[in-house]
Amino acid sequence: MSHANAAASPVIDALVAAFGADEVLAGDASPRHLKDWSGVAGGVPLAILRPRSTDELSRMVAICHAHGQRVVAQGGLTGLVGGAVPGEGEVVVSLERMNRIESIDVDSGTATVQAGAVLQAVQDACREAGALLAVDLGARGSCQLGGNVATNAGGNRVIRYGNTRESVLGLEVVLADGTVLSMMNRMAKNNAGMDLKHLFIGSEGVLGIVTRVVLRLQPLPRGTSTALVALQDYTAALRFLRHAQQSLSGQVSAFEIMWRDYLETAVEANRLRRPLAGDYPVYVLIDMHCGQPETDGERFEAMLEQAIEAGWILDAAIAQSVADTEAFWAIRDGIAEVLRDYAPTLNFDVSVPVADIGDCAARVRANLERDWPQLKALFFGHVGDGNLHVVVCRVPRDADSLHRIEDAVYSVVRKQGGSVSAEHGIGRLKRDWLHYSRSEAEIALMRTLKTALDPQGILNPGRMI
Amino acid sequence: MSHANAAASPVIDALVAAFGADEVLAGDASPRHLKDWSGVAGGVPLAILRPRSTDELSRMVAICHAHGQRVVAQGGLTGLVGGAVPGEGEVVVSLERMNRIESIDVDSGTATVQAGAVLQAVQDACREAGALLAVDLGARGSCQLGGNVATNAGGNRVIRYGNTRESVLGLEVVLADGTVLSMMNRMAKNNAGMDLKHLFIGSEGVLGIVTRVVLRLQPLPRGTSTALVALQDYTAALRFLRHAQQSLSGQVSAFEIMWRDYLETAVEANRLRRPLAGDYPVYVLIDMHCGQPETDGERFEAMLEQAIEAGWILDAAIAQSVADTEAFWAIRDGIAEVLRDYAPTLNFDVSVPVADIGDCAARVRANLERDWPQLKALFFGHVGDGNLHVVVCRVPRDADSLHRIEDAVYSVVRKQGGSVSAEHGIGRLKRDWLHYSRSEAEIALMRTLKTALDPQGILNPGRMI
Repeated sequence: MSHANAAASPVIDALVAAFGADEVLAGDASPRHLKDWSGVAGGVPLAILRPRSTDELSRMVAICHAHGQRVVAQGGLTGLVGGAVPGEGEVVVSLERMNRIESIDVDSGTATVQAGAVLQAVQDACREAGALLAVDLGARGSCQLGGNVATNAGGNRVIRYGNTRESVLGLEVVLADGTVLSMMNRMAKNNAGMDLKHLFIGSEGVLGIVTRVVLRLQPLPRGTSTALVALQDYTAALRFLRHAQQSLSGQVSAFEIMWRDYLETAVEANRLRRPLAGDYPVYVLIDMHCGQPETDGERFEAMLEQAIEAGWILDAAIAQSVADTEAFWAIRDGIAEVLRDYAPTLNFDVSVPVADIGDCAARVRANLERDWPQLKALFFGHVGDGNLHVVVCRVPRDADSLHRIEDAVYSVVRKQGGSVSAEHGIGRLKRDWLHYSRSEAEIALMRTLKTALDPQGILNPGRMI
Repeated sequence: MSHANAAASPVIDALVAAFGADEVLAGDASPRHLKDWSGVAGGVPLAILRPRSTDELSRMVAICHAHGQRVVAQGGLTGLVGGAVPGEGEVVVSLERMNRIESIDVDSGTATVQAGAVLQAVQDACREAGALLAVDLGARGSCQLGGNVATNAGGNRVIRYGNTRESVLGLEVVLADGTVLSMMNRMAKNNAGMDLKHLFIGSEGVLGIVTRVVLRLQPLPRGTSTALVALQDYTAALRFLRHAQQSLSGQVSAFEIMWRDYLETAVEANRLRRPLAGDYPVYVLIDMHCGQPETDGERFEAMLEQAIEAGWILDAAIAQSVADTEAFWAIRDGIAEVLRDYAPTLNFDVSVPVADIGDCAARVRANLERDWPQLKALFFGHVGDGNLHVVVCRVPRDADSLHRIEDAVYSVVRKQGGSVSAEHGIGRLKRDWLHYSRSEAEIALMRTLKTALDPQGILNPGRMI
């Protein structure tokens, strides 16, 4: 694909003059810079910039700023809301060359990386050094830390370790005019004035471009216990969650709920073995990270036995080997095959207070069955975080139907005071629904901040707000 | 003390006309509204406002805004940096009547309170309902949740549960013009646009007044194990910290270091018994919150035994009773008596990366011994958070000496990339030192935000920036 008007653009001339043709790709854009995992179509960018350092990136943004040129920041392009997909005539700033792991300090529990570092590479380097980077999600092999920060990425470990926000101690950000804002704090406590990094975490690049990150590391778990548990309904899952969290006191490291519809579909799509013989309404995949594995397994079993005796759970399979653990997780992680087999799908990522998840799922299911009885819908999620995922399979392709299906889900979430985006962000695709979860005063303040930090509106325009 | 010019003030006339004399105390100010725990002198306020609801508070601020009247928000006045101490001619907005605990939802892990609720009252109500509010600090009997949020209060449990920020899910804030900004989120995950609450947490009231808070609750621990441990030096403490955190995997709930100077002084000032017979350079008070106390005590002991075998710790006393636990903590909490016995003191609250605490303490000690060999200095802190407290006893009273002692401490912190305020905030007293821990670009952005949200500068003027 060729770039729009690149040849005739003074801003591209200025960028090429300053940085050369290798860092300013103004000829053909590789298709990999044009789409994220949502597949949504964008436009043709003017150029792809590939800086090697914060200083270069800062100077590039300053040139764009001087020309009033719109800029979109790109990490690993694993997003699901089109936030990093270029719009027509935008300049792409790709962080792919800024992928250095600068230092890992296990004693202080910190790692310092450039924003383009790939999550899995950082995880591996930390593990090798003897520490855990707790940020973890399915896209780990491609997503970049800068994108994780900009979207406040969630994942499977949030129940214990928090969102990406809780793993960020410090940031370096380039502002809309090219100013380098260094907030490279390495302490868990720093109340010297406003903690400005939080302005940028989860702001999807509309206030600045993340260039470096100080990550908070956790002690490396010495062992993991995992079980797949069968339950009667969501109320039972809630009782079980409270019991497990109290009994294991801080060590529940995943609590993934799967309704029967999801589990059966995932098992079939991935040709997996079912770990439990019976057929149950609800399943939970629970695991515990621990530090004395020789005895911690007994605590895990004691917790499960109490839950069976109390009637909160109906059956449980405890992983006896790494292969078992992987087999259990393969069901939860088998979502990719499901999405392929049942395309086109609509994928929801909503949150409501933990106690209301069961009610939310039931209402959404009722709305869908009433208006689209032929559609298959799958329910699963990260219960401890109040995060529900719903996949509606083989949806019609017309915009009106899609909008009405979205409304059938989001209107329930809105009534429950929930969020239309628990962990995926707003980007381009969810802008129309933002007001379901945020008040007018909140959206007005987001605009005030945008105007204060980027008065020309050149950073990630048309995303989020 | 009588109020300055209250009789002749149109803004007071307007407030009294709208709310009556009971909510607008414009006669004599009770001394309790004039000072915080730092004792720093402020000025004479125009009036003390005592709203009963967000709506009233909002209308009061709107009237002040219309008159360009400066306003200072007051919680429990337990701060240590003069942030809530009124300046001459300011109007005080006291949250003391907005102290309702609105709801506690143990299943969702949330509590909703008005900002004037006293921390200990909320802790007690949550415990009674079956959940833990993890925010905890010495001032719990007086401090208010709104103040805890506005200052992002720390305390003894940060190593496990984080600062106040990590216990806040949602906020309601009144902005400078009286606008009520509701962000009463109840989910752990909500990436629907910017997470604006973070702008206000730790911003010391300069951007808005916190009126209601949604708190995140934790599972109630079923048991606690506590030990007082003796060590050779800080390096050993660091090895022991890493070992304990890995072995107890997420359950280390306090890790308080005390150098010999602090422990001996606190034991003497409080007439306490020494739990360990010998005399050691460094002590650590460690505790674990757990969920299966019948077996968890063994894990705690196994962890300590390994540490002794490895040579990281020299001796350890394990609490065998609640009385033991209280006796151990009495040493750490005995700071109040120390401050009284050795007044006037200078109290430092700094942070540096965890690995550098020992070096920081040594350098500060060397600076003090070089220039003030007659002064006694005590060292202790929350090591897992990188937070070091230093108390310099019986300091001279002249401003120049005090400034030079402060510089002897803060210049070390600055060189190590640390913070001049780990948990106490900036307020009035630390403004001169803010630039030691924040860059020009950071301070400029703080001002940009202040101007964007409060262009007249009426909220907590002269604090922080």
